[in-house]
Amino acid sequence: MTKFDEATRALRVDETTYDVCLDDGYGIGGPLNGGYLLAVVLRAVVDASPHAHPVSTSAQFLRAPRPGPAQVRLEQLKAGRTAAMTRATLLQDDRAYIEALVTTATLGDAAPDWSAGPPLAMPPPERCRPLPEPKPESNMTLNAQLEMLFDPPTIGWLTGEPTGRPESRAYFRMAEPQDPDPFVLALAVDALPPVVFSAGARGWAPTVELTWYLRALPAPGWLTLYGSGRLISDGWFDEEVEVRDSTGRIVAQSRQIARLGRG
Amino acid sequence: MTKFDEATRALRVDETTYDVCLDDGYGIGGPLNGGYLLAVVLRAVVDASPHAHPVSTSAQFLRAPRPGPAQVRLEQLKAGRTAAMTRATLLQDDRAYIEALVTTATLGDAAPDWSAGPPLAMPPPERCRPLPEPKPESNMTLNAQLEMLFDPPTIGWLTGEPTGRPESRAYFRMAEPQDPDPFVLALAVDALPPVVFSAGARGWAPTVELTWYLRALPAPGWLTLYGSGRLISDGWFDEEVEVRDSTGRIVAQSRQIARLGRG
Repeated sequence: MTKFDEATRALRVDETTYDVCLDDGYGIGGPLNGGYLLAVVLRAVVDASPHAHPVSTSAQFLRAPRPGPAQVRLEQLKAGRTAAMTRATLLQDDRAYIEALVTTATLGDAAPDWSAGPPLAMPPPERCRPLPEPKPESNMTLNAQLEMLFDPPTIGWLTGEPTGRPESRAYFRMAEPQDPDPFVLALAVDALPPVVFSAGARGWAPTVELTWYLRALPAPGWLTLYGSGRLISDGWFDEEVEVRDSTGRIVAQSRQIARLGRG
Repeated sequence: MTKFDEATRALRVDETTYDVCLDDGYGIGGPLNGGYLLAVVLRAVVDASPHAHPVSTSAQFLRAPRPGPAQVRLEQLKAGRTAAMTRATLLQDDRAYIEALVTTATLGDAAPDWSAGPPLAMPPPERCRPLPEPKPESNMTLNAQLEMLFDPPTIGWLTGEPTGRPESRAYFRMAEPQDPDPFVLALAVDALPPVVFSAGARGWAPTVELTWYLRALPAPGWLTLYGSGRLISDGWFDEEVEVRDSTGRIVAQSRQIARLGRG
């Protein structure tokens, strides 16, 4: 069991309740990373489902929970032959922090019927760059769990050279060796710095809603995250991430809407 | 009040319940159009919200409801200063047909800080084409409510010439003159024939999950719908629609995951 597996463990209390413990090793400057929280929720959903894979997850982020004990409460909405649908709520002290709707199904391993090509060419990992080590007081504990190598222009904002449009691209794997699985993908779709940093924005950019689809089980090795956005307007921005596995296959797609930081 | 306004009317029974009547004029070969059903749900959500606009809507389609009386049941999850979050369930005979999570907020009319260019060049409306009149027995009653003019290659599948990739693009407006509003946009994001028809697929392609974001209030006039997909695999496909108003501004973004038809 890896540290990530442990940090996302969900212990069944009864048919509708799971106990979890939110790990302070997934902090992004105070709040816990949203993808990490979704991975925790999905552990419970998948455990309780007749199907193996979380194909669709939509989540509203109501509040930021603290590290420590929490619960996942499940409501089974439909249990079909092809897919099951579940409502899942992350609770702390009986208060809802995340509301999610999850569709589980069982994916096969057939080759795709049709696939779009990669969104953009990525330089090879040896020409990509990690983020600088965060200052201990920044509380960016998430960084230590991940190995990410960025397409250099998309972290130009670090040195005052943003590209001028919302984008972020990186190779991704867990720092502790672990083959990617659907729970790692939940973490991956929300692991990039906000794409708006490349457009010159700064500050805490809270996710309001995030939906991601699991499209295939990833092959072992690096994942590649292609992050982009279409519109920054009125204090809101969208962020899309396409995740490909080491064979180049699309394994996950996400889109979130978030608030612009106040800098 | 237009026919669409009437067909989506939600009458408040009490704080958590609205009565609606699902109109058989929005059929797509038997089932009712998913975007129409979301417009009905959103009428209730917005009526009960302190905010004016449905910024984010995620919906799971559990079952296909029949035309006739139904209810929308609301649960207020959070009422914040910037945004409110609501769970909404479409019920018929006390059974859930759609589960949705909706974030409402109040959008302004400032110019975007940054926007992507149009996904593709569209020919002008006079070089685009409507779908042929549906056969009465097909129960495609939705078509009569809409005026849609398609980029010709993206309806080549009608004459045995699919483009070979998932795509569909059209100008869109209500047949009965009506300025587009957020409820019309809910209809618009699910109004294109499934994008996989252009990739050679056929048959009823049921939406499993659809999330759409309202990004701005649309200007009067035609909307343009740019539909595409990234992956067709294992019986599942994604469909994305970017909606622009008559000024070219991005007003809505949707993505859905659906099952491939067996047809």
